[in-house]
Amino acid sequence: MARAGIVVTGTEVLTGRVADRNGPWLAEELRRLGVDVAFVIVAGDRPDDLRQALDYFAASGVDLILTSGGLGPTADDLTADVVATFQGRPATVDPELERRIRAIIDRLSAGRGWHLHEDATAAAARKQALVPAGASVLEPVGTAPGLVVPVAAGRTGPPVVVLPGPPRELQPMWPAALADPAVQAAIGGRVQLRQRTIRLWGTPESELAATLRDLEAAADTLSDLEITTCLRDGELEIVTRFPSAAQGAYDHLESVLTAAYADTVFSTDGRTIDDVVAEALLAGGRTIATAESCTGGLLAGRLTDRPGSSAYVLGGLVVYSNEMKQELAGVPMSLIEQVGAVSAEVADALADGARVRIGADVGVGITGVAGPDGGTQTKPVGLVHLCVSSADDRIERKVRLPGSRADVRQRSVVLALHMIRRLLERASA
Amino acid sequence: MARAGIVVTGTEVLTGRVADRNGPWLAEELRRLGVDVAFVIVAGDRPDDLRQALDYFAASGVDLILTSGGLGPTADDLTADVVATFQGRPATVDPELERRIRAIIDRLSAGRGWHLHEDATAAAARKQALVPAGASVLEPVGTAPGLVVPVAAGRTGPPVVVLPGPPRELQPMWPAALADPAVQAAIGGRVQLRQRTIRLWGTPESELAATLRDLEAAADTLSDLEITTCLRDGELEIVTRFPSAAQGAYDHLESVLTAAYADTVFSTDGRTIDDVVAEALLAGGRTIATAESCTGGLLAGRLTDRPGSSAYVLGGLVVYSNEMKQELAGVPMSLIEQVGAVSAEVADALADGARVRIGADVGVGITGVAGPDGGTQTKPVGLVHLCVSSADDRIERKVRLPGSRADVRQRSVVLALHMIRRLLERASA
Repeated sequence: MARAGIVVTGTEVLTGRVADRNGPWLAEELRRLGVDVAFVIVAGDRPDDLRQALDYFAASGVDLILTSGGLGPTADDLTADVVATFQGRPATVDPELERRIRAIIDRLSAGRGWHLHEDATAAAARKQALVPAGASVLEPVGTAPGLVVPVAAGRTGPPVVVLPGPPRELQPMWPAALADPAVQAAIGGRVQLRQRTIRLWGTPESELAATLRDLEAAADTLSDLEITTCLRDGELEIVTRFPSAAQGAYDHLESVLTAAYADTVFSTDGRTIDDVVAEALLAGGRTIATAESCTGGLLAGRLTDRPGSSAYVLGGLVVYSNEMKQELAGVPMSLIEQVGAVSAEVADALADGARVRIGADVGVGITGVAGPDGGTQTKPVGLVHLCVSSADDRIERKVRLPGSRADVRQRSVVLALHMIRRLLERASA
Repeated sequence: MARAGIVVTGTEVLTGRVADRNGPWLAEELRRLGVDVAFVIVAGDRPDDLRQALDYFAASGVDLILTSGGLGPTADDLTADVVATFQGRPATVDPELERRIRAIIDRLSAGRGWHLHEDATAAAARKQALVPAGASVLEPVGTAPGLVVPVAAGRTGPPVVVLPGPPRELQPMWPAALADPAVQAAIGGRVQLRQRTIRLWGTPESELAATLRDLEAAADTLSDLEITTCLRDGELEIVTRFPSAAQGAYDHLESVLTAAYADTVFSTDGRTIDDVVAEALLAGGRTIATAESCTGGLLAGRLTDRPGSSAYVLGGLVVYSNEMKQELAGVPMSLIEQVGAVSAEVADALADGARVRIGADVGVGITGVAGPDGGTQTKPVGLVHLCVSSADDRIERKVRLPGSRADVRQRSVVLALHMIRRLLERASA
């Protein structure tokens, strides 16, 4: 099986100012092609750090190295230079490429109405047009070209694919990188692994562990399966990878798990809760509206993440103050004064208010104490009331969620999505 | 300077199903303490991968290794085991710890109303209570304890700090890890670096690169400063690290940049645009309301991310359909029919509608084509109209944003925040 190493460069990634999206994206793309990625190394913007990461992967015998980032116009963007030295291929300016980059910069600047200094622009284009001798150029998507840099003639070692940092530049460039003959030669002879995902809502990880142990004890059918489990936002995700010969073993695992956890398995085909909810709304021709207090628009934002969501999301209300709960969602102020804004009654009234006022089939109401302040003895931080209602059905939940303000808000959104799913399942049953 | 290596384990992180928050968080905590982190290695849940990462850091001579993840009850959670072998300290079950973990599981399950199987729970507690001989236990925040595992007597090598994967467990456990004598001994003798951040909105990176080159050419005052720049969501961020002796050089850099980019620098003290907007609203005693079409609640969600945002966020409208633009925000249907939902006029009407209907001082309206479908010749994907208004002022913008649906939505939110900032600055000028 071919193996690849990925180096994500950028002090901003290493220090968490920007979350890395490239390492996982490339690892997943390679996995689909049957290329194993054991590691992603996230390295700072110092030349020695990048060099050390390249040395490490070369020494560990990978067939291909990929880098992302460090291709911009500033002095800390040094990937092309370091890779050129590493591969023993000195870099020089490619005048034709410099001209193309210059044209891109001029066009982008004009679109934004930016006035650029001639010297600065020329220097930026020149720096970004540095190409190691014998490397292939991957045409820029933004302003930075990518590179495929083979090792110098007479030496052995993996080729290095140099890609830009912004995901929206890296991803469109990937097909060209993959088509490069040096890359194709490096990752040839690969065995593709299958991957399947089962998702559960409401099963503790310890229960699943016991089921897997029992299964293993009964018959050793799990040995060809690489099973990883992961708990996040209350969902338990089981991802299994296997060679095609182990399809039977996987099918057995899936049937055991779906039988044991019939009530909690909500996806066996990779669909997320967002997919399941969107498809159920579309299939039933139903529309939805939200009224959010503590989640402040995050549920509406998540429902509208999907292309085409305008077919079923009619609108939403962010009702942070009590006045807005009354004015926008029609929650009686007397009710709020009587039971408090964080209560089952107000969650109900929010769901119904959103549904009726916006004219949707399904309404969602969320009210809670996201914290870190504002908790009381009876209504502590993390207490959230949720309601999902239709004209003839409703689901209510009261939970106390652990963690930070962001955790409480995020978990509330996921819980609301699962309540919407249940209501839609009952409606179509 | 002391050096540390971080291993983030988890196939779910390596394959991008979960974004890693621990590597950057730990790197940043260590940086504050003056400990250098050159690398974060993200490794899958296979024992060999973790072992290889540990070997690498040990060989590269770091003073301390930290791991996150792999402490759960399932079989793929194998960090404690691998680290025990790596350090030459066989692991055994600590019965007292097992009892404490069991009590935690029982309490958590009761709170969630879960019915657990005795065998499964006992096995989970036993697995999580495995402690390498001579290791210190860090008390569980969730159910998994952390560990500080020194190398076996008679051998040399860095101690390994084993931390759980969920950030809300890892972060509260960090002070105890840091206080451990083995950790203190490992990272002693450190030189703390200062870090300062300057943020700009509307300056191209190539211009900044030219200014930095000029500064370097004029006098070599930059050599003691480690400067990294990063462009994201349209903001340009300049982060500089330096020893205290270089404070003068940094002050000079800051004064040059703030003079050269007086119009675009919006923060020199680490504050984000979210901080700046929240403080301006609080300082002016002003309230805000939103009406969002293409961003579908993301701006409201971001404004309410902050604790205490209820002091200035009154509410928001998600007006995905034209009907809702009329009903909730009071945009005349005749106007929508005349100029289209994505237009400067409708953005204006949304801002005013949110402001007046919700009774806030500042209103924000956003309408655009987020894509990937729905674009036309005259209104292409990425076209967004925004308006921020108060009773006596307004700022309008029309932009065409590049990238995916998520990019367009995200960039629109950041642009809106900067427009809010400008309006508030003008009001207080």
